[in-house]
Amino acid sequence: MQALIAAAEAAADVAAAAVRPFYRAGVSADLKGDASPVTVADRTAELAMRAVLAQRFPEHGILGEEFGLDRPDARLRWVLDPIDGTRAFITGRPTFGTLVALLDGPTPILGVIDQPITGERWVGTAGQPTRFRGAHGRAGCRPCAGLAQAELSCTAPEIFTAEQTIVWQRLAAATRRTSWGGDCYAYGLLALGAIDVIAEPGLKVWDWAALVPVIEGAGGRMTDWRGRPMHPDGDGCALAVGDPALLPPALALLAA
Amino acid sequence: MQALIAAAEAAADVAAAAVRPFYRAGVSADLKGDASPVTVADRTAELAMRAVLAQRFPEHGILGEEFGLDRPDARLRWVLDPIDGTRAFITGRPTFGTLVALLDGPTPILGVIDQPITGERWVGTAGQPTRFRGAHGRAGCRPCAGLAQAELSCTAPEIFTAEQTIVWQRLAAATRRTSWGGDCYAYGLLALGAIDVIAEPGLKVWDWAALVPVIEGAGGRMTDWRGRPMHPDGDGCALAVGDPALLPPALALLAA
Repeated sequence: MQALIAAAEAAADVAAAAVRPFYRAGVSADLKGDASPVTVADRTAELAMRAVLAQRFPEHGILGEEFGLDRPDARLRWVLDPIDGTRAFITGRPTFGTLVALLDGPTPILGVIDQPITGERWVGTAGQPTRFRGAHGRAGCRPCAGLAQAELSCTAPEIFTAEQTIVWQRLAAATRRTSWGGDCYAYGLLALGAIDVIAEPGLKVWDWAALVPVIEGAGGRMTDWRGRPMHPDGDGCALAVGDPALLPPALALLAA
Repeated sequence: MQALIAAAEAAADVAAAAVRPFYRAGVSADLKGDASPVTVADRTAELAMRAVLAQRFPEHGILGEEFGLDRPDARLRWVLDPIDGTRAFITGRPTFGTLVALLDGPTPILGVIDQPITGERWVGTAGQPTRFRGAHGRAGCRPCAGLAQAELSCTAPEIFTAEQTIVWQRLAAATRRTSWGGDCYAYGLLALGAIDVIAEPGLKVWDWAALVPVIEGAGGRMTDWRGRPMHPDGDGCALAVGDPALLPPALALLAA
């Protein structure tokens, strides 16, 4: 496992180096299609990560948001999202992240959340305590007495369908407060004990695969909205809780 | 003016030192009333700033969110918000800020936005170009061809009344995209050319006074929703644009 962790961290390192020059680098408000700085940063970072991982583990599969799937038959598959939180990146917020995960079949066994501007990094490994590198905070979810005391977080209100909005607002109404923005970074904050609940729809496998080992290794739980393990063929609705005791009441509210 | 700027920066320095120990420092999900870490950080920082400013300029007024108004008859009045973005602070996001402003009568002539975790600082002075300290980006709003190309930002959907939501959604529908979260930090990003429009209600004088010199010194504009200068006795509805040409179409959409 040490070689796998080292490879995941090396991939995050090259992605960070590829992304940083494009952060706040005069991103124009005009759409520039394929030539936009965020797209260039995204693609460059993914190619760099693929190069690092394929060189170390040529037999592994690699799935990335930008360049699809290599070696689909491999049981071990790297799953990459070079810039999770495009809106945050484009608007100059240091709350996007690079995600590196390793799936064994459908199950994530290793996940890295890296924030290349603040230098923060979360490393989660199945069965091991999550490791956090950063100047502030330490890995570990916090206990929470109940939903009424819980800090809820969500990336943006626009990510829900009308039906999902109704369901999600039931959950939101039961919590203490909602804060907005964050993408993967908010899941990292949950793993630091600063946020208690996140419920979001529409996550692709590269959005969630790295989060599961980070959160579970910090003592939390991450499932779909029916309490099942997240699955690459699932519907992408994710629920993360810092205190496992929050899972049943949150699931009850999310049940249609 | 140099002595005033130095005092404002000295105030931001002590606030940052007072706030940092409480960032992600095991803030419990339980409300603890006056003893909550965010309240302690807020009050400690404000008292420290008041001490710095009163020692240098005993004749000036000081208004702070936590401790009210000293020397109400002074023409020059410091206006302080130790932690703007309480939700961001509580949830461990480095997108809150400390705000220090100096008003001459109703008019802000100096403003500092300080982010104590990333070490970023914006200093705006009436009639001078805004100065930015930070590893990424440089001060200066960007041109924007029109609202359809504009990045809109907003702290949270919950800050609007039902009526304001309708008005704001008219503006949002005319822009390219909305990103969420940020408080004062989003206004700083507008002054870096990463965001084009912000429209928010409910700002107190300590929320907006520091922002006006920063934004105007970066080439942008900040007014109320009727295009009038922000005023301590106003309704607290703020509109900030990076490109002054966006002001008329944004105001037209915000007019009731």
